[in-house]
Amino acid sequence: MSGLPAEGRRRTVIENVTPQVDGGRFPAKQVVGDTLVVEADVFADGHDEVRARLSWRPPDNPAWQQQEMDPVGNDRWQASFRLGEVGRYEFFVSARVDHWRTWVHDLQKRVAAGQDVTVDLQIGAQIIAAAAERAADADHASVLTETAAQLTASTALAPGLTEIMDANPDLTWATSLDSPLAVVVDPVRARFSAWYELFPRSASPDPKRHGTFDDVINRLDYIAGLGFDVLYLPPISPIGRHFRKGPNNRESGTAADLGVPWAIGAPVGGHTAIHPQLGDLGGFDRLVHAARQRGIEVALDIAFQSSPDHPWVTDHPEWFRARPDGTVQYAENPPKKYQDIYPFDFEASDWRGLWQALNDVFRFWIGHGVNIFRVDNPHTKPFAFWEWCLNDIKADHPQVIFLAEAFTRPKVMYQLAKVGFSQSYTYFTWRNNAAEMQEYLEELTRPPVSDFFRPNFWPNTPDILHADLQTGGPAAFEARLVLAATLSSSYGIYGPVFELGESTARELGSEEYLNSEKYQQRTWDLTGGARLRGLIERVNGARRAHPALQTNERLLFHPADNPNLLAYSKNTANQRDVILTVVNFDYHATHSGVITIDLAALGLVDGAPYEAVDLLDDQTYTWIGPRAWVELDPTVRAAHVLWLRQLP
Amino acid sequence: MSGLPAEGRRRTVIENVTPQVDGGRFPAKQVVGDTLVVEADVFADGHDEVRARLSWRPPDNPAWQQQEMDPVGNDRWQASFRLGEVGRYEFFVSARVDHWRTWVHDLQKRVAAGQDVTVDLQIGAQIIAAAAERAADADHASVLTETAAQLTASTALAPGLTEIMDANPDLTWATSLDSPLAVVVDPVRARFSAWYELFPRSASPDPKRHGTFDDVINRLDYIAGLGFDVLYLPPISPIGRHFRKGPNNRESGTAADLGVPWAIGAPVGGHTAIHPQLGDLGGFDRLVHAARQRGIEVALDIAFQSSPDHPWVTDHPEWFRARPDGTVQYAENPPKKYQDIYPFDFEASDWRGLWQALNDVFRFWIGHGVNIFRVDNPHTKPFAFWEWCLNDIKADHPQVIFLAEAFTRPKVMYQLAKVGFSQSYTYFTWRNNAAEMQEYLEELTRPPVSDFFRPNFWPNTPDILHADLQTGGPAAFEARLVLAATLSSSYGIYGPVFELGESTARELGSEEYLNSEKYQQRTWDLTGGARLRGLIERVNGARRAHPALQTNERLLFHPADNPNLLAYSKNTANQRDVILTVVNFDYHATHSGVITIDLAALGLVDGAPYEAVDLLDDQTYTWIGPRAWVELDPTVRAAHVLWLRQLP
Repeated sequence: MSGLPAEGRRRTVIENVTPQVDGGRFPAKQVVGDTLVVEADVFADGHDEVRARLSWRPPDNPAWQQQEMDPVGNDRWQASFRLGEVGRYEFFVSARVDHWRTWVHDLQKRVAAGQDVTVDLQIGAQIIAAAAERAADADHASVLTETAAQLTASTALAPGLTEIMDANPDLTWATSLDSPLAVVVDPVRARFSAWYELFPRSASPDPKRHGTFDDVINRLDYIAGLGFDVLYLPPISPIGRHFRKGPNNRESGTAADLGVPWAIGAPVGGHTAIHPQLGDLGGFDRLVHAARQRGIEVALDIAFQSSPDHPWVTDHPEWFRARPDGTVQYAENPPKKYQDIYPFDFEASDWRGLWQALNDVFRFWIGHGVNIFRVDNPHTKPFAFWEWCLNDIKADHPQVIFLAEAFTRPKVMYQLAKVGFSQSYTYFTWRNNAAEMQEYLEELTRPPVSDFFRPNFWPNTPDILHADLQTGGPAAFEARLVLAATLSSSYGIYGPVFELGESTARELGSEEYLNSEKYQQRTWDLTGGARLRGLIERVNGARRAHPALQTNERLLFHPADNPNLLAYSKNTANQRDVILTVVNFDYHATHSGVITIDLAALGLVDGAPYEAVDLLDDQTYTWIGPRAWVELDPTVRAAHVLWLRQLP
Repeated sequence: MSGLPAEGRRRTVIENVTPQVDGGRFPAKQVVGDTLVVEADVFADGHDEVRARLSWRPPDNPAWQQQEMDPVGNDRWQASFRLGEVGRYEFFVSARVDHWRTWVHDLQKRVAAGQDVTVDLQIGAQIIAAAAERAADADHASVLTETAAQLTASTALAPGLTEIMDANPDLTWATSLDSPLAVVVDPVRARFSAWYELFPRSASPDPKRHGTFDDVINRLDYIAGLGFDVLYLPPISPIGRHFRKGPNNRESGTAADLGVPWAIGAPVGGHTAIHPQLGDLGGFDRLVHAARQRGIEVALDIAFQSSPDHPWVTDHPEWFRARPDGTVQYAENPPKKYQDIYPFDFEASDWRGLWQALNDVFRFWIGHGVNIFRVDNPHTKPFAFWEWCLNDIKADHPQVIFLAEAFTRPKVMYQLAKVGFSQSYTYFTWRNNAAEMQEYLEELTRPPVSDFFRPNFWPNTPDILHADLQTGGPAAFEARLVLAATLSSSYGIYGPVFELGESTARELGSEEYLNSEKYQQRTWDLTGGARLRGLIERVNGARRAHPALQTNERLLFHPADNPNLLAYSKNTANQRDVILTVVNFDYHATHSGVITIDLAALGLVDGAPYEAVDLLDDQTYTWIGPRAWVELDPTVRAAHVLWLRQLP
């Protein structure tokens, strides 16, 4: 009799528990205030009644809360609870055969059939007497003992009895998940955020004076006025001098060249120091404080690589790879060489020391009020490092958000999200027609991906001026802005080049900006770009006013009979807030068509009139039925963002 | 630094290994001779080359075989191996970063760009020298040492070197699955089988004489002539006397009533004894032998329940549930009582003794040459019991096949397949239009379900005379036969009632046969039913001649413009054998329509003529292009089973 289970009488099966990422290998993600809906398949052999129970505990609380699950059909059970705080919750499901409820259920049918139930009542009395022995509550024990002693069909079927029986269940042969599942609860901004990226070097209004943190402080009202709530700065650490790059990525010609902020480290310091031309730590602290007063969080760019001048190159040569000629291995993509950048050697024998030093970089900036990090190229560092580092930091600082800047292969990007990144860059920029965009969003916003991956959509970045923006004119900027901000509850722009409509590439076929701020200081006239600024204010205002736009959970596409048009809705779970967006992907021609709206999914009544208010220009339309005719002339508007309401 | 991994330099990730059932909780299923294709997502951080390796071992062989996997795109890797014997194979995937191949790849680009590679060659020589130290093979070690000592770009890039480097890989930081996955390899008949069920009691040509095993032997040539290869007998154990049922499930009136074969056990014996009216063990052994001579396996029905007269009721009262009045708990579905049946109590304290006794029942019959068991109502016994019992038996007797007769909720049916049943009854009988049938088959024949669940389709059983057969006339019998036999590589009929077209239900709205053999002896005139017999012979002949019909792996539906028609193909992996079946679901009217055939999926050339030979009547059609017009008149034929071949 080999292979026998320790206990063969555990009859319930628990399967397919959701949410669950890779069989529980990774936690699912939610934000604070969410209700976590847990479901599981629960069943047993035969026809006995089963019961399922959800157990869960909040962060830093070893005690399990318990609640009964409800059957929702087809052997699926459900329960939910509110995620009231940030941190790591755990939960599991247990199940048992419920002989009491089985007996009650059978007794009802016997009584209805007029059968003699004498022996059945004796069986029921045995079940009740056993519950009396289990009961910790003395009142329960005495009620049950008395009931068992003189059981009749009518006392047996009294609802109060089953309530007491439920409270004293027989868990002898209960089953439960082998190990609990986890859900990481992040601040709301992990899911709903509007990012504005700028180069502090160009924040100075005077082209002859390098921008400083104080110049950025002066820019805050402008950014807050546009409606953004995250201000993201490229690296602010000292910039290396060796192999420094000049304008347009040329070899540096003069000592006046400013270099690239991602070449981290100089004699004055490395990842935890401030680039002297920007100011000092006091200036940075002032910026963080001034931003927070305006509802803006400062996000820092963390690039785990060094310039040849980084103090670690001499203090910790063991963290770099040595070449046989005694030099340090620089970054390469053969045959290209990036001699201004030294990657860390994650195969170093002192990997533990390196990991801790990098972890300490985050902790240093957290100590200076930074709660959001945009991590540069995380896909070139081991997943095991990120899993340890992000979890280690979030254990102490659960409010911290990490954005993964990985533009690489899909499975690598998803793995970074699984191991702990709160948000991720995406392929949004390269989804340039309606069908591609729909397909991509349906992948991103549905399980399994939506359980662990939160997209952050960017129409442009300092590295990506897409051809659509180079050739599409204002309509392209408008369409891409609306798409990013309404498809994804987190999005961002790199400004002020975006709102100023900067569209000149370094050369034909390149996605690099001409005279990019990555390599030089620019000076911007912020009185320009009025049309785009107006649109951005409108869009960010709509996002704040409409909870439907603050999640991707119920993104739904509605068929259009013109392939240039993409129509999609978001709504709240209670269907009280419904936004329908329609975008024209052709930036050069007017397109019209009929959208077939899934009214039922949006809680709208077919045959009754409803109002569509365009949140971009306050125009109001009255529609009836599922078919809506739409026309978008790119010289007038690239998109509608329509608030739908049933008319009374 | 809490939570650090033991080794932080393991950089490769292995995910989504297939086949895999519930994260490896259960084995996948294959049949002997199959090629197992294993795939996995394998990747690492950064841009280094990775390598993936498949390790596997056959049953009873502790040594792992190893082979390199090949990349098939999008970070997916694949390897396959032949499953040469029945039993439980294990396999796992491991992966590593390959610094040698990364270095070679980079060197090629450096050389092509005309760069100075002096230092690179020094790095390469270090990698080779390290491999030389690892090499177990002395020839390898010396070749590598020599090569390292005088490395040039051209010796470095010689393919022979990489072959030797591959043979001496650096596995220091390799990763692998936490635990191996398993695949159970069954005999071919587990996937491809044609079952014929008959009641031995009715095998006698003389209504006054009870049928015996020798009568069944006399029936074998008839069954073999129809083309079946499994003869399935309802239980052959002694039938209980107490509460015995008479004809049409009435209370027994006289001692002459034969009773129900599923009421197992009488004073002469229980599950391992023979019902005396059928003969004795010697007769059964003769039947098994005579059947096997005709290529037919005898399948026994195992029903784990007792009549009140089963010897275990007195010898092992602890395996039954006692009622408070001292009687034994009989089967119930309140308010219905089945006093002729005592279920076993799987919550008995001696569950171990009960499990072993039931296991011994299978082993007894295996000792008498039975390799196939149809298990009655397995869903009323614990899953844990089946998982232990079936695995325990298959460890000693890997050739044994178990068919689960569970008509219950979908997740319960799937769980029985997961825990070890080789084949399963299905909802086929209740899928009665083309759309429902297609949807159901697409669920059954694709992963995840197809990894663990093998359908066995039955147009009728002794418990199920579907309304379609009661009202549909010969066309219904023909259509359901063709559907069962061509949609599912395993199917069966309950005869001879099926081929004789028996269609009278016990009462209106019932699926029970009138005068069912479950309760009484019948006598059959086997000269009748010529049309159906002819069809069955044709269909079974086509199944044997065409490997496409011997698996469900490539079942594909082709759209028809008439919803009464269902068109589907099966083909072999090499596309050399292609069968297209078209069935008319309306048994009372002629229907015609155009089938749009996915020619590419079948290896047929669009625009070139191909031949369609109807295997049911040898009629030949010549078609060209994807659109084929079909007409089915139910008075002439219910279906086409077309062998498609490109014309030369």
